[in-house]
Amino acid sequence: MPDVTHVAIQGGPGSFHALASEQYFDGDITLVPCDTFSETFKALGKTADYSVVAIENSLFGSINKVYDLLLKHRAWIIGEVYLKIEQCLVGLPGARIDQIKEVHTQAEAMAQCEEYLDTRLSAAKRVEQHDTAASVAMIKLWGDVSKAAIASRAASELHDLEVLADEIETNKQNYTRFIVLAKPGVELPNATSDGQPKTSIVLSMADKPGALYHALGVFAQRNINLSKLESRPVIGKAWHYIFYLDFEAGLDNPEAKAALDELKKEGHEITVLGSYAQGMMPPIIPA
Amino acid sequence: MPDVTHVAIQGGPGSFHALASEQYFDGDITLVPCDTFSETFKALGKTADYSVVAIENSLFGSINKVYDLLLKHRAWIIGEVYLKIEQCLVGLPGARIDQIKEVHTQAEAMAQCEEYLDTRLSAAKRVEQHDTAASVAMIKLWGDVSKAAIASRAASELHDLEVLADEIETNKQNYTRFIVLAKPGVELPNATSDGQPKTSIVLSMADKPGALYHALGVFAQRNINLSKLESRPVIGKAWHYIFYLDFEAGLDNPEAKAALDELKKEGHEITVLGSYAQGMMPPIIPA
Repeated sequence: MPDVTHVAIQGGPGSFHALASEQYFDGDITLVPCDTFSETFKALGKTADYSVVAIENSLFGSINKVYDLLLKHRAWIIGEVYLKIEQCLVGLPGARIDQIKEVHTQAEAMAQCEEYLDTRLSAAKRVEQHDTAASVAMIKLWGDVSKAAIASRAASELHDLEVLADEIETNKQNYTRFIVLAKPGVELPNATSDGQPKTSIVLSMADKPGALYHALGVFAQRNINLSKLESRPVIGKAWHYIFYLDFEAGLDNPEAKAALDELKKEGHEITVLGSYAQGMMPPIIPA
Repeated sequence: MPDVTHVAIQGGPGSFHALASEQYFDGDITLVPCDTFSETFKALGKTADYSVVAIENSLFGSINKVYDLLLKHRAWIIGEVYLKIEQCLVGLPGARIDQIKEVHTQAEAMAQCEEYLDTRLSAAKRVEQHDTAASVAMIKLWGDVSKAAIASRAASELHDLEVLADEIETNKQNYTRFIVLAKPGVELPNATSDGQPKTSIVLSMADKPGALYHALGVFAQRNINLSKLESRPVIGKAWHYIFYLDFEAGLDNPEAKAALDELKKEGHEITVLGSYAQGMMPPIIPA
C-alpha cells in the first residue's frame, strides 16, 4: 500500500466527487480521475486504494448504474458521505453576468440550474460538457469573458476564477449520498466518520407469494429501521427483481445477525455489501 | 374526438414505441411523434387521444423519468403492452456486412448490440443518433452501402431497406413494458387486451416505523399479488420516498378496495394511476 491514499473518482479535481472524497478522508489524498463509474470500480486494488461514487441524489433518486456495478464487482462499502450540492456560475475574474454568451457544464448541472439560466441568461448558448470541474478548466484556457461554467465554488477556486453568482440551483434541497469503496479485506482508513452503524445488503428472494413483505417483517419485528430499499432487475430473468437494502445496524448487532440468519433459513440469498458508520447529513432546509 | 385515434410516442414510425402502439390498438392509428417523454405527456388531450410510453425494460430496469412524469401530469394508465426487443443490422439492399464502415443508432440500442459489434464489426465507426428508426431513414437518404443502422425489422421494412443480420442484441431476454395513457375521463379505446386486471397506485406514507412493511402486509393478508414496487424520492424532502405499486386486482375487486381503504385509514396517501387489463407477455426464453 502506498503512503498516500489513492482515491478513484469519476471526474477530476474540483468535482463534487473530489469534494466528497476530501470530506471523507479529511487529509492528504491523491485523486485517481476516471471517465466512468465502471472505471472507478476497476481501479480498486490497482491504481486506487479506495473509490468514492455517488449512489443517490435527493432530487433525482438512485444512480442505477452504480447499484448494478456494486454487485458486479463485489466491492466492499466502507463508508458514506453526504454533500449539499451548490452550483455556482463561474467566469473569468472581472467578467460580468450580462456579458455571458455561453454557459458550459455537465448535463445534470445544467438541468439543476434551468430556472436561473431561463431568467438571468436566457440568451446565452448552453453547451454540455462531461464534467463540471473540467468546464471551469476550459473557461480558464479560453480566457474569454463571454464564456462561463456551472460548477462548485471549489472548482472555481482551484482554477483562480471568479464566482459570478452562487446557489443558482433551482431546488436548494439538493443533496448527494456518496459511498466509499474498497476491495474486500483492505485495511480501513482513518476516516472522520463516527456515526451510527449502517449495513448494506442485496436480497435475492426465493419465489414465494408475499416474499418481500415477509423479508421486511424480519427487520420490522426486530425494530431494525430500513433507510433504503431499491429494486433492480435480475438480468436474464425477466420481471424478477433483486432488492438493495440499507438497515441501521451493524453486522455485529445480534438482532441484525438473527435477521439475516432468518432470511437465509427461508431460502433467500443475502450478499453483504458492507457495514459502516453512517455519514453526517448536512442540515436539511425545511420544505 | 377525431375519427382516427391519435397516439403520441417518443420517436416516430418504425420505432419500438410505434410497434407497441400498433400492437395495443390493433388498428388504424395516427402516430404523433415527440422528441421527449415529457412532450408525449403534454400532447395528451391536445394533439393526441392517447400516448404509449416505455416504463421498464427487463435488462435496464425502470425508466425513472416516466415514473416522475406519471405523478406530475396525473395521466391515467388505461393499459399496458409488452414487447420483445429484437435488434437488426439494417443496410441498403445488396449491402454486405463486410462492407460496413459506420453503424448508426440510438445509444441504448448500440449498447445492447455491443458484443455483435465487437466481434463482427470491430473496425466500424459507431455513431449515436437520437432514435433507432430515424437512423434507418438516414441510411436510406445517404444511399451509401458502407453505412448501416441498428433498428427493428419494422423500421427496415418501412424504408424498404434490408435486414443484413437479425437478433444481434447480446442478451435475448430483452423485453420492454409500455403503458398506455389517457387524460382522466377519456373514453376507453377498443383495445385487444383482455388480460387479468392490474392496478397502479402511488403510495405516500405517513412517517411511521415499519410503514412500508405494514403497507405491504395490507396486500399480502388479502392474497393480492404485487407485480412491481418502485421507490422515487420526494422532491423537497430529502431521503423521503414515495412508492409506485402495481397489484394484480382491479379497483372493483372488494379485497383491493378494502386494502386501499385500510391504507387511507392508517394515514397513507394513495393516488390511483389506473386500473386496466394486463398485457400479454411474450413467451420468456428460459435462462
